[in-house]
Amino acid sequence: MATRPFLSGRALACALGSAGLLLSALPAAMAQTAAARAPLSAMDSDPVKLGLMVGSPPPADKQITFQNAGQFPNLRWSLQHMRELVPSRNVWRGTGAATELPRSERDWSAFAFDDGAGARLGIDAYAQRSYTDAIVVLHKGRVVLERYWSGMTPNTLHSVFSVTKSLTGVLASQLIAEGRLDPNARVSQYLPELAGTAWEDATVQQTLDMTAGVRFREDYADPTSEVIQYAIASGLVPMPPTWAGPRDTLSFLKTLKKEGQHGAGFVYKTVHSEVVGWLVHRVTGKPFSQNLSERIWSRMGAENDASINIDRLGFESMGSGFNATARDLARLGELLRNDGAVGGLFSRQALLDKAAVDAIRTGGDREKFKAGGQAARPGYSYRNQWWITHNADGAWEASGIHGQYIHINPAAQMVIVRLGSSPVAANGPAHPLHMRAFQALADTLR
Amino acid sequence: MATRPFLSGRALACALGSAGLLLSALPAAMAQTAAARAPLSAMDSDPVKLGLMVGSPPPADKQITFQNAGQFPNLRWSLQHMRELVPSRNVWRGTGAATELPRSERDWSAFAFDDGAGARLGIDAYAQRSYTDAIVVLHKGRVVLERYWSGMTPNTLHSVFSVTKSLTGVLASQLIAEGRLDPNARVSQYLPELAGTAWEDATVQQTLDMTAGVRFREDYADPTSEVIQYAIASGLVPMPPTWAGPRDTLSFLKTLKKEGQHGAGFVYKTVHSEVVGWLVHRVTGKPFSQNLSERIWSRMGAENDASINIDRLGFESMGSGFNATARDLARLGELLRNDGAVGGLFSRQALLDKAAVDAIRTGGDREKFKAGGQAARPGYSYRNQWWITHNADGAWEASGIHGQYIHINPAAQMVIVRLGSSPVAANGPAHPLHMRAFQALADTLR
Repeated sequence: MATRPFLSGRALACALGSAGLLLSALPAAMAQTAAARAPLSAMDSDPVKLGLMVGSPPPADKQITFQNAGQFPNLRWSLQHMRELVPSRNVWRGTGAATELPRSERDWSAFAFDDGAGARLGIDAYAQRSYTDAIVVLHKGRVVLERYWSGMTPNTLHSVFSVTKSLTGVLASQLIAEGRLDPNARVSQYLPELAGTAWEDATVQQTLDMTAGVRFREDYADPTSEVIQYAIASGLVPMPPTWAGPRDTLSFLKTLKKEGQHGAGFVYKTVHSEVVGWLVHRVTGKPFSQNLSERIWSRMGAENDASINIDRLGFESMGSGFNATARDLARLGELLRNDGAVGGLFSRQALLDKAAVDAIRTGGDREKFKAGGQAARPGYSYRNQWWITHNADGAWEASGIHGQYIHINPAAQMVIVRLGSSPVAANGPAHPLHMRAFQALADTLR
Repeated sequence: MATRPFLSGRALACALGSAGLLLSALPAAMAQTAAARAPLSAMDSDPVKLGLMVGSPPPADKQITFQNAGQFPNLRWSLQHMRELVPSRNVWRGTGAATELPRSERDWSAFAFDDGAGARLGIDAYAQRSYTDAIVVLHKGRVVLERYWSGMTPNTLHSVFSVTKSLTGVLASQLIAEGRLDPNARVSQYLPELAGTAWEDATVQQTLDMTAGVRFREDYADPTSEVIQYAIASGLVPMPPTWAGPRDTLSFLKTLKKEGQHGAGFVYKTVHSEVVGWLVHRVTGKPFSQNLSERIWSRMGAENDASINIDRLGFESMGSGFNATARDLARLGELLRNDGAVGGLFSRQALLDKAAVDAIRTGGDREKFKAGGQAARPGYSYRNQWWITHNADGAWEASGIHGQYIHINPAAQMVIVRLGSSPVAANGPAHPLHMRAFQALADTLR
C-alpha cells in the first residue's frame, strides 16, 4: 500500500522552511544545513557571549522562537530551554532532599588524548572542538570531573534527544523482567490499534532492537517521506495550513506499513522507540513521565525534576523529548552501572531488576547490526534501545544527536554524561572523537 | 490616538472561535458562555469521572488541546495541566528537602456555614457548589484542613490566574523596601520603551494600585477591544492567520495609550500587572521565575517546583500565568502572615522585609476603589496587586478567576488556599460565597 501524500510540494516548503529546532530532534540522515557552511566555533557561538534571549524583550536579532529555534547558533540556547518552546510534562523527583554526589575531583590540566588526526586535546580543547555544554564523569560513583560551558549550570535541564529512547528501553526492560511485557509477543497483542501496520506481526523484542521492518524513510528531499509526516504530526515542526495528515504521534504510527522481514537486520528508526513507549504506557496504564518518576527519579536522589516534550494529545516524545540535568543523568548511569541499585553496602536498594540491566548490557546481534549502516560504530550491537560497544571494557551507551551521551564503562567503573549542542544534527561524524575522549578518560581513571 | 484595528471581523471570529482556555485567563468582564447555559454540576463535570485525557490516545471526545482547553468542562482538566498546553518556565525549589507542614487536622463533619440564600453548607457541599479542586487551611501554621477533588493531589500544580499578580506585587513591594524601585518614579524612568504610552507619566505606585489611566477595554463584542489584542499578542489564544498586530506581550503594552487621569480611581486591568512584572525584571535583570525562586521558592521549604506560562518571546505571564500546588501556596501565605519570615523562635529567617508586607496589607484608598465597579467586594481597597478587605479581621487576599484564592486572616491566624475550576470565568459571582466560607472557617478556628 502506497504512502499517501499528505503534503503538496508548496506546503512542504512551508513546513521545512520553518522547521526549526525540532526537526533536528530526529536521528540520523539529518539535513546538515548550517553545519555544511563552516559554522561559528563553539566559543563564537556561545549563547551567553551572543546574548541570545537576554533582555526584556531581547533585541530582535537575539530572539528565539519555535520558528527559528533549531537554526545554528540558536540551537545552542534552545537545547537548554526546550520547555520554553514546546508543551511538556514534569518528571517529578519527589519532596525529599537530593543525595549529594560524593566528589573526588582531580587535576585534569595534564590530561590529553589523541584526536586521531594528529592533535592532542585536553578537556577544554575537546569541549571547544565538540561544542560541549556539560561533562560529568563519575569514577566508582564519585565525581572526578564536572564542567559546564555555554551558560549551562548544574541545575540546567538539557535536551538529550535520542538518549530518551534508552530511558524508554530501561522501562520496557524492567517490565519484561517483571513478566508484565512479553518480548516474544506481537506488538499488536498489546496495541490492537497497530493491526494493519508494520507492528501487527513484529515482536516486542524486534521493536526494542529496531529489527522490525517498517517503511519509514528519512529523506528530506521527498515530500512523501515519512519523516516529514512524523515531524509534523508529532508537533516537532509547525503544521502547514494545508496539512491533511495525522495530527498526533499515535495517529501517525498507525499509518506505517511493513517493509521487508521482521528480525532481518537493524535499522535505526525513531518510530520504534515511540512504539516501545506506547507499549510501556499501555502495559502500566501510566505515561513515561510517571513511570520514570515513580520507579527511578523520585528514588535515586535526583537534584531536579526532569521534563519531557509532548505532542498535541499529550503523548510524550519517548523517542527524543527528554530533558534533564547532567548530574541527574549521571545518577541514572551510575544506577545502571550498579545493576539497577542505589545506596551502599548497608543501604542498598534495587530500583530495577538486575535481569533488566543484564538484558540491555549483554547486547544484541552484532551481525544484524551491520545492516544499519552505522559506520561510526563498528562492532556494536543495538539492544533494548541502547548502543552496546562490545569493546574490551564492555562499554554501553545512550546517544542523542547534537552530542548527547550516557556512557557506561564497567571495567573502568566509570560513567560519563556528556551533553552538547553541535551544529551537526547527526550522531556519526563526531562519535569517533567522543569515543577517543571517553576511552582516554577511562584509561586515566582505571 | 485611536487604537489601530489589528483584526478584521472575520479574523476576530477566527480568533475567538478557537479562543479556548486562555481567554479565560483574563480577569473580569469575561464572556460567560457555557456558564450561562446551566453547566454540569461539579460532580458531573469531574474530569476524572469524565475520563478527560485518559488513555493513549484518549478517545476523540475526551481529547483536550490548546484549541478546546477553555471550554467547560474541559477547563476542569486544563487548570491542572497548563504546562501541557503552553510553553512555560520553571520556578525552582532547590535541592533541599521540603519542610513538612505540621498538622493538626480537625473533624470538620459538624462544620457548616450559611450560604446567604437559606442553606447551610458543609465542606463537601461548599466544594461541590463552587467547583473546588483543593482547599488547604493553616491555623497558626498548622494544617487543620486539606482536601482535594477533581483528580487533584498535593503535588498537582494548579493554575492560579490572577493570584499571579499578587506574587508579582510581592516582588515589587520587596524591591521598593530595598530601595531599588522608587514607587514615586515614573514607570518610563525604568522602562523607556513605554514613552508615549499610558505609563510614560504614570508612577510605579499608580501602576501597582491600578489607578494609572490606560485605554484598555475588555469588550468581547468589539474587535478593536484591546483585550482581544492582548490575548492574541501574549499567546493566550491562537493567532489568526491575518493578524497584523503585536506578536508578544511587551510589543502590545507599547501600543496602549493614556486615558483619563492617573491616580483618579482604581480599575482592574491585567496590563498593569504585566508592567509591574516588567519593572521587576528590568530592575533586577532577572525574570519573575528566577526572582521568585531565589528569594522565596527555594527558601520556604516548598515541596514542588512551580511553573509560569510564557509568551512567544519568553516573557512570563506575570498577570495570570502562575501554577503551583495548594500546599506551596499555603506556605507562601503563611510566610506573608508572618511578616515575610519562615522558621520558629530560634530558626527565624526573613525572606522579605516586614516593610514590604506592611505596604501591602495596610491597604490602599478605599474611596478610589469604588470607581472599579467591584460590587462583590464592598469596602475593599486594592494595594500593590492585593485585595485588602478592611474587615474586622484585617483579612487580605490574592484572587484569580475560576475561583483561586490565597486568603490571609491575621486576627484568626489563618491562611486559606482555595483552588477551583468554576465554569464562571469571573471573580465576582462566587466571591460572596467564598467569603462566607472563609469567615466561618476563621470563626471556628479562633
